[in-house]
Amino acid sequence: MSNADTPVQAVILVSCPDQPGIVAKLAGALHEVGGNILDASQHTDVSSRTFLQRIHVSWPHDSPEPEAVQEAIDETAAEFEMTWRIRWQQSPRRVAIFVSRQDHCLHDLLLLQRDGALQCRIPLIISNHKDLEEVADRFGVPFHHVPVQGSVDEDAEAGQISLLSAHDIDLVVLARYMRVLSPKFISQYESRIINIHHSFLPAFAGGRPYHQAHVKGVKLVGATAHYATAELDAGPIIEQGVIRVSHRDSVTDMERKGSDIERTVLARAVRWHLEDRIVVHDGRAIVFD
Amino acid sequence: MSNADTPVQAVILVSCPDQPGIVAKLAGALHEVGGNILDASQHTDVSSRTFLQRIHVSWPHDSPEPEAVQEAIDETAAEFEMTWRIRWQQSPRRVAIFVSRQDHCLHDLLLLQRDGALQCRIPLIISNHKDLEEVADRFGVPFHHVPVQGSVDEDAEAGQISLLSAHDIDLVVLARYMRVLSPKFISQYESRIINIHHSFLPAFAGGRPYHQAHVKGVKLVGATAHYATAELDAGPIIEQGVIRVSHRDSVTDMERKGSDIERTVLARAVRWHLEDRIVVHDGRAIVFD
Amino acid sequence: MSNADTPVQAVILVSCPDQPGIVAKLAGALHEVGGNILDASQHTDVSSRTFLQRIHVSWPHDSPEPEAVQEAIDETAAEFEMTWRIRWQQSPRRVAIFVSRQDHCLHDLLLLQRDGALQCRIPLIISNHKDLEEVADRFGVPFHHVPVQGSVDEDAEAGQISLLSAHDIDLVVLARYMRVLSPKFISQYESRIINIHHSFLPAFAGGRPYHQAHVKGVKLVGATAHYATAELDAGPIIEQGVIRVSHRDSVTDMERKGSDIERTVLARAVRWHLEDRIVVHDGRAIVFD
Amino acid sequence: MSNADTPVQAVILVSCPDQPGIVAKLAGALHEVGGNILDASQHTDVSSRTFLQRIHVSWPHDSPEPEAVQEAIDETAAEFEMTWRIRWQQSPRRVAIFVSRQDHCLHDLLLLQRDGALQCRIPLIISNHKDLEEVADRFGVPFHHVPVQGSVDEDAEAGQISLLSAHDIDLVVLARYMRVLSPKFISQYESRIINIHHSFLPAFAGGRPYHQAHVKGVKLVGATAHYATAELDAGPIIEQGVIRVSHRDSVTDMERKGSDIERTVLARAVRWHLEDRIVVHDGRAIVFD
Repeated sequence: MSNADTPVQAVILVSCPDQPGIVAKLAGALHEVGGNILDASQHTDVSSRTFLQRIHVSWPHDSPEPEAVQEAIDETAAEFEMTWRIRWQQSPRRVAIFVSRQDHCLHDLLLLQRDGALQCRIPLIISNHKDLEEVADRFGVPFHHVPVQGSVDEDAEAGQISLLSAHDIDLVVLARYMRVLSPKFISQYESRIINIHHSFLPAFAGGRPYHQAHVKGVKLVGATAHYATAELDAGPIIEQGVIRVSHRDSVTDMERKGSDIERTVLARAVRWHLEDRIVVHDGRAIVFD
Repeated sequence: MSNADTPVQAVILVSCPDQPGIVAKLAGALHEVGGNILDASQHTDVSSRTFLQRIHVSWPHDSPEPEAVQEAIDETAAEFEMTWRIRWQQSPRRVAIFVSRQDHCLHDLLLLQRDGALQCRIPLIISNHKDLEEVADRFGVPFHHVPVQGSVDEDAEAGQISLLSAHDIDLVVLARYMRVLSPKFISQYESRIINIHHSFLPAFAGGRPYHQAHVKGVKLVGATAHYATAELDAGPIIEQGVIRVSHRDSVTDMERKGSDIERTVLARAVRWHLEDRIVVHDGRAIVFD
Repeated sequence: MSNADTPVQAVILVSCPDQPGIVAKLAGALHEVGGNILDASQHTDVSSRTFLQRIHVSWPHDSPEPEAVQEAIDETAAEFEMTWRIRWQQSPRRVAIFVSRQDHCLHDLLLLQRDGALQCRIPLIISNHKDLEEVADRFGVPFHHVPVQGSVDEDAEAGQISLLSAHDIDLVVLARYMRVLSPKFISQYESRIINIHHSFLPAFAGGRPYHQAHVKGVKLVGATAHYATAELDAGPIIEQGVIRVSHRDSVTDMERKGSDIERTVLARAVRWHLEDRIVVHDGRAIVFD
Repeated sequence: MSNADTPVQAVILVSCPDQPGIVAKLAGALHEVGGNILDASQHTDVSSRTFLQRIHVSWPHDSPEPEAVQEAIDETAAEFEMTWRIRWQQSPRRVAIFVSRQDHCLHDLLLLQRDGALQCRIPLIISNHKDLEEVADRFGVPFHHVPVQGSVDEDAEAGQISLLSAHDIDLVVLARYMRVLSPKFISQYESRIINIHHSFLPAFAGGRPYHQAHVKGVKLVGATAHYATAELDAGPIIEQGVIRVSHRDSVTDMERKGSDIERTVLARAVRWHLEDRIVVHDGRAIVFD
């Protein structure tokens, strides 16, 4: 489960009712199976008295037996009523990107993945339009055109889900995909669909946020990356950014300024997800940096 | 209308239906009455086809006759169906500050005014609590305690308005004043009441915005300075700012981080108002910088 | 000098010793030749007592005679010892992009130009490496590989300049071009070469700025777009931006974070140049917004 | 060593050559003496292969015996060649503030301490001028006027140090104190003197940074909080911030805009120091958030 050169690494995310001793017990358990803690971040949610921790472990000496690691954590988990998951870093996630006609976010994701700044594979791009097929071609990523009729199109969603299944997709990124996904679709990828909304949510949820911002005369426009949930634009917020605008900016100017923020914010959210830095607890995204 | 040392200066704000030639005509008219344009900013609101301009004029040679200036502008104004106003900079505005219990914004305004960064007089502070009387005393500003009962208190408002009238107040600054003013009060000081709301409006209008922001799990908290209108927290936005927060921040932490932004944003809005940089058009505040 | 549909527009930049009456006279002169002032910004440099103005003019009724416009301005210019220039917006500038191996800035410029956010033509890309030929091909821009030997390579510069001349280039953009241009080259394109330096100048001028920043332990890294001058990284600053870093960020992390700022800052500087918003006075770039 | 109501808490900072097992061993040791880890942050400096950790511990059940805790950590420390220190949170630090004539930073520190946002005592303010005695009086903090002659004044420094000793001062905050302290003074308070410099260091070290920034025409001005070292303005950087400026801003405008950043940046640095979040390693300040 390793090659000779680099030690095996994994990220473990745990959650349990808060009580004394968790950190020491878990650290001890990992130590006993040969793990060395490279980084550990914890957070206690005060209102629900919940302990959450992200542990980045390496095995500097011998490659671990995954079963032994699992058993060691399970033992501690039982003691503290802990839910937990582990991701071995040798197996990068598989990401599908959904787009419509705008390509600024798509370009960024493809360039970052190419440069190694996003540790993942991108087996396919899905779009309700054909416009961006050319971009996909340039980067050698298979492009699937799935036309969408009406506000929710069950056939289209069936086609999309069948593509996601066929390619064993772990994460869906909505990179300015301008259609709404059904709650049924979303429930199959809970906390695994990241959307970029082009406003500082919860302000200007829904359609045409830059128009809304222009009418309102705000002095900053923003972008919000969040996990999609059944309620539109209301899922756990992962990252946000803003940029200054003024009365001189038309809606088009706002769109241009905002697009710089959109792609940066989305790229950051995707990277954090791929690095297992995000835990959703009680409707909020905790991002361990 | 001047002293020997510094030339007389004025700021003129004009608004009219857009058409060619306005800038040249107005510049010519001011030149003829001895005015020199130190700075001129213009904006054309495309949807309403309205021309707006701020002109900062000085009289480098002789002091002007205000009547002659008025007559010269009136003539151009008639030609272009222009509404306009002039403020001679020799007469600083008179500002009343409303506060409740928190003093971070109050402190800033008093220090800035003392240091000459806010060109105004502050003849009084009004509060529904006695807590900040001591701060007012330190800065030598008369403090008036006007207790407020219930959600709207007509007697209290009558008392406040009578104080404002007696002190010939031009501008009311709500520096974390935690009570709602009635539409009737507000209508008497249209575009002359500046409020600081401790969120990035239109997100989290109404009460306890930091609590709302914490529940929602936003990654930035903000502050908005706006003119008060009859609809709560919906008046023209003058300035906004944000600061980064994370899951580690409790509501109290957010309040502390936000307070730095609140006072900066409020101070900027007040300064722009005092420098006649703001025109409200079609429900939006245009800030000429 | 126009088509039937859109009025002819021009931007005029003037500079002269400050004295009363300039604004009115110039506005009057433009009015007389049929020009309507869409926007005018002025600045008086106090230390040198110099008046600077940018005027955006349209001819809403009839197309102007360029000679008549020139004559009208010349007359005012003579009176005020004014230097001035006019750019008719019907003729977009011709821009050459210089790159080495990194393509994040190049991609942004090409996408923005394609989307109409940069009003210019891009007749060629010049590089000292072949790596980015593929990117140029994708966007259909001719790519010229000009290898550079040693710290200054006269032959290479001769080749570059001959390409610039042959393509009638108005503006050179150094989009992470990692070689130094000679003072002789730079003098031929004074205030017409924009460079992006990946630090917050004047901090970390010269080579490997992210390494310098890492050693120094700064908490923000930045980028600076400036006009190239004979002195390395010391030319007039057009725009700057920063992004937060911490001890957790390696040099590679800083490079990745910084690249987002670099491309945004460079794109903004290029756009402002193309919109004739920049005047260099006394070694500083004045940007009229 | 506690009262009945709140559990005893402490912050432990450790540093040692990096090797596997440290985290688990230390967590185990603290667990054995009844400690519960509320928060733990670690950092490995790659170039020097040094492991650094901040551990926030509470004793939820019984108050600890400090000697037993010390012994337990010492044992682990010996195994890993660790240097370490502990701060029991029941004993707030004692802070002296040095000022000259400007009071914006002083005001902020005093207000934050009064509101409980800075956990410390402020037994005295020292100044080379009498101007701010009045501010000190308002807040009930003893003010000591120590005039300073020439560039370094040994008598003045002797007086200052004697005051610091007499008041058992842990931390010196230079809140816009405009004199240079001698290396001898500084060496007595290594990593315990925080200075605010009004520029984005390393740009514009030394005197009159806003003037330097104005001459240079930068588009952002900044502030840097750092530990004072023998070399002027070159000590470990704790925090930095910037604010946008333009050609329209005079030096005075820059000073006003900068002062908002100065006080925010300084207050943040002081709070982090008081919360034992900062470790200086290899000339850089690591801030555990």
